[in-house]
Amino acid sequence: MTDTVGPPPAIVLVRPQLGENIGKAARAMLNFGLTELRLVAPRDGWPNPSAGPAAAGADTVLESARVFDTLAEAVGDCPHVYATTVRKRGVTKPVVSPEQAAAGIHGVTARSAIVFGPERSGLETDEVALARSILTVPINPDFASLNLAQAVILCAYEWSKAKGLVQPTAEEQLPPAPQEELEGLVGHFEALLEPRKYFWPESRAAASRRTLRNMLTKPGWNSLEVRTMRGVLSTLEREPGSRD
Amino acid sequence: MTDTVGPPPAIVLVRPQLGENIGKAARAMLNFGLTELRLVAPRDGWPNPSAGPAAAGADTVLESARVFDTLAEAVGDCPHVYATTVRKRGVTKPVVSPEQAAAGIHGVTARSAIVFGPERSGLETDEVALARSILTVPINPDFASLNLAQAVILCAYEWSKAKGLVQPTAEEQLPPAPQEELEGLVGHFEALLEPRKYFWPESRAAASRRTLRNMLTKPGWNSLEVRTMRGVLSTLEREPGSRD
Repeated sequence: MTDTVGPPPAIVLVRPQLGENIGKAARAMLNFGLTELRLVAPRDGWPNPSAGPAAAGADTVLESARVFDTLAEAVGDCPHVYATTVRKRGVTKPVVSPEQAAAGIHGVTARSAIVFGPERSGLETDEVALARSILTVPINPDFASLNLAQAVILCAYEWSKAKGLVQPTAEEQLPPAPQEELEGLVGHFEALLEPRKYFWPESRAAASRRTLRNMLTKPGWNSLEVRTMRGVLSTLEREPGSRD
Repeated sequence: MTDTVGPPPAIVLVRPQLGENIGKAARAMLNFGLTELRLVAPRDGWPNPSAGPAAAGADTVLESARVFDTLAEAVGDCPHVYATTVRKRGVTKPVVSPEQAAAGIHGVTARSAIVFGPERSGLETDEVALARSILTVPINPDFASLNLAQAVILCAYEWSKAKGLVQPTAEEQLPPAPQEELEGLVGHFEALLEPRKYFWPESRAAASRRTLRNMLTKPGWNSLEVRTMRGVLSTLEREPGSRD
């Protein structure tokens, strides 16, 4: 038994509605040793007086919680982003169980993020598109009624279980580039494609952008590879025959 | 994956205090396919009007719940009884994790019971003595604050996992594109990069080509994705402002 390789994952709650649920999530986290809580645009602002009582003593998690305007900012430093969903989605991303996610999180040195959507609606398609993997809890198909704190506790529990069970990877591959570098690459593609009417007609623009983003997220390119692709794009901006 | 051997375990709540917690436990159970709920001397009697709303639709579990005066009666038909505790007890019984309990439950043909104590105090020593094994969730020693429904859901989740429930989201992903399509993509990149002097100086050309090829091989893009990237490249060949 060796210690875990990477830091504990960040738990990211996107547009959580009730302060009580944020508190319950914090409690669920701390039960299994997770402390890094990030909130994206909590509906009722932050801090929220309802969170504390529900946290049942996990105040330290709430006090150190950080608030972000967007999911992209919240996971900017996390190369491995897991988006939790209940329903099936038509996206081309690997779908993992909490157990598989835990193994993945322990196997990398960079910080991972597990992202949870709002209580009722769940994550939006564009938010899922930011993630490298989809995390789904295998659940009774006739009664799928997992609430936010329950989803958090199952993920935290599996992470805690896998802790100490990890074999140190002999030679670790470079981790995927941080999310912000990936965003830079996506933005570079879009900046070149936009004036060339790639996202046309307008009715298909959103879907085309999502497809492109999913494609560029899929490889898990590391920082060097992202930089190489940026170089390729810069080269393609040049006229043939020219150089720099 | 084979089917389970024995019947799903009974979830036994001993002297539960709040109806709301009974409802939450029912909800937790049904999420993972458990339906056999037994109550021992619930504090506020049974049925309890607070249970229904908290069950969030798991009414069928509540309606079929059976009430007993003593734990011994409640587990009378169960040869394998697991008593859940948070703290270590000075008893000479095997202590198992939820995962180990799940394996044990699936491995026997008779019905097993997982027994949970009252919210605050937990099971009494005489009740623990009725059990063959002690089930303990490995938890953060500095913050052990698992509530009743959370303890139930972790046990139900592990039972369900061991049953081999398939991921409901197992949407078949398209396989990677055939090699010749990948070659076409690599060739397309090279054809655009060559006249723009990307592979320059000559001494680094071979390494640059290899890097590019490795990068494009890494994603395992399927045929649709390869075609999309070809479309992106064709677009980049165009002058800004033009279309087709």
